[in-house]
Amino acid sequence: MDIKTYLKDKRDLIDSFLRGYFAEAVRPEVLTESMFYSLSAGGKRIRPVLCMAAYEACGGRAEDIVGYASAIEMIHTYSLIHDDLPCMDDDDLRRGKPTNHKVYGEAIAILAGDALLTEAFSILSVPRPPVTPDRLLSVIAEISTASGMRGMVGGQVQDMLSENSGPDEETLRFIHMKKTAALLSASVTSGALLFGPDSDRLSAVSEYGLKIGLAFQVIDDILDIEGETEVLGKPKGSDEKKRKLTYPRVYGLAGSKAMAGDLIKEALAPLSDFSSEADPLREIAGFLLNRTN
Amino acid sequence: MDIKTYLKDKRDLIDSFLRGYFAEAVRPEVLTESMFYSLSAGGKRIRPVLCMAAYEACGGRAEDIVGYASAIEMIHTYSLIHDDLPCMDDDDLRRGKPTNHKVYGEAIAILAGDALLTEAFSILSVPRPPVTPDRLLSVIAEISTASGMRGMVGGQVQDMLSENSGPDEETLRFIHMKKTAALLSASVTSGALLFGPDSDRLSAVSEYGLKIGLAFQVIDDILDIEGETEVLGKPKGSDEKKRKLTYPRVYGLAGSKAMAGDLIKEALAPLSDFSSEADPLREIAGFLLNRTN
Repeated sequence: MDIKTYLKDKRDLIDSFLRGYFAEAVRPEVLTESMFYSLSAGGKRIRPVLCMAAYEACGGRAEDIVGYASAIEMIHTYSLIHDDLPCMDDDDLRRGKPTNHKVYGEAIAILAGDALLTEAFSILSVPRPPVTPDRLLSVIAEISTASGMRGMVGGQVQDMLSENSGPDEETLRFIHMKKTAALLSASVTSGALLFGPDSDRLSAVSEYGLKIGLAFQVIDDILDIEGETEVLGKPKGSDEKKRKLTYPRVYGLAGSKAMAGDLIKEALAPLSDFSSEADPLREIAGFLLNRTN
Repeated sequence: MDIKTYLKDKRDLIDSFLRGYFAEAVRPEVLTESMFYSLSAGGKRIRPVLCMAAYEACGGRAEDIVGYASAIEMIHTYSLIHDDLPCMDDDDLRRGKPTNHKVYGEAIAILAGDALLTEAFSILSVPRPPVTPDRLLSVIAEISTASGMRGMVGGQVQDMLSENSGPDEETLRFIHMKKTAALLSASVTSGALLFGPDSDRLSAVSEYGLKIGLAFQVIDDILDIEGETEVLGKPKGSDEKKRKLTYPRVYGLAGSKAMAGDLIKEALAPLSDFSSEADPLREIAGFLLNRTN
């Protein structure tokens, strides 16, 4: 299989769903315009793609869950909008475009984030065959836990509290586990949950998701030092500038690279009992390790 | 029945659930502390009480749904925290206490709001007998629609856009329908949905909720002019100061009072087929009309 074609095909499904979802004008238009502005800023869609790949690895057809996968992208996008706010990371650029609050102002940016988060649960609350109500409910449980006070939001708060603090392995792991790995991992797990409650496959896929999630952040930290500003879509070196607690700061650049490679290897192990239907998951792991943005 | 005792009993159930929910320390503690600070600032708990009263009117036991009702209070509280932010209404006082961002700063206040919204869906995603997964999913659909871009958040955006604009009946109704009535009405409807899909009772109770919701905002606008700052817990006259589009501004004070009275009367009509199990809903309507904060 060609992973680049696979990723593009899946990204097209997501983009097309999101365009359709926001095609109809809803009053007040500035709100939906602002929500769609950030949604269509050209992300990699890695979370919904992982969700669909996990669904396929369990035996499902990705087309059946595009809406649910897109809901996860909405949650990711809301978190970026709020993270970029002046009182948080105060970023002007995201994916090479002005951040939401730079275009629409702080109030609309906050409310667009709120609305994206809420809309995600709205989409996840409508059962569409073959997905049943009880599976959807378990996905809502998984996603909300991963993104709330015990997950992403908790990690973001700890991240802010830890700026300028000394290197601390345990806190670093806590932040990245919560802030990034939790939702990435939940995206993978949700793909399996949407298919059904086969616990063996579920735990294998979840284990893969967790390792991928941790690797993703280590690689992000490395790219902030070694990447190119134009490719990253945001100024490189911003972690250092903000004295963020990062992997290179705790383990050095070489140590972090070794760690990312190990995590990707560990991610593949639990997939050993799967046949070719898990190839996309396997290929995505390698793709993430070699990404440049 | 004594409505004051009823309200206090129900409020105690909610408060006790919320205290229990936040009893265990979750890292980072400042986040959960900030969430609980606003949750325990002494609101009337009118939305969860309405939810429980509607559940009872359909034949259920309020004790069975305290968690779900409390989730609605979390959503209401998140909206207050975000509304109060400097870039929105810029309020320093709420229910007589400093607003969340005054105590914890803007970043934590935004994240505490985000986490409360997310946590609400987390609570609503766990089925507890006698509530079944499909009923919970319909409640998540109802609540998320009422609080997102087609509901509360949309209304808040329109409210901001309409400051300093001329009196406009249609826009006023749009704002209040979305900003306040939608979630109040959804609280009532959710109570009925949690019990089951009897469509006659459901539509009667929903109609009651809609009228109550609209009346609530008219009364709020009147209290902003006639209430006492100490009783309101916030400075009176703040709508006028911000040139908000309010009912008294469009219909005058006497006209608004007549309108509130009419809406409360209209709220009672759909309950005519219910017997005494709907008395709490009836009494709450009168209580809302005569409230002083």
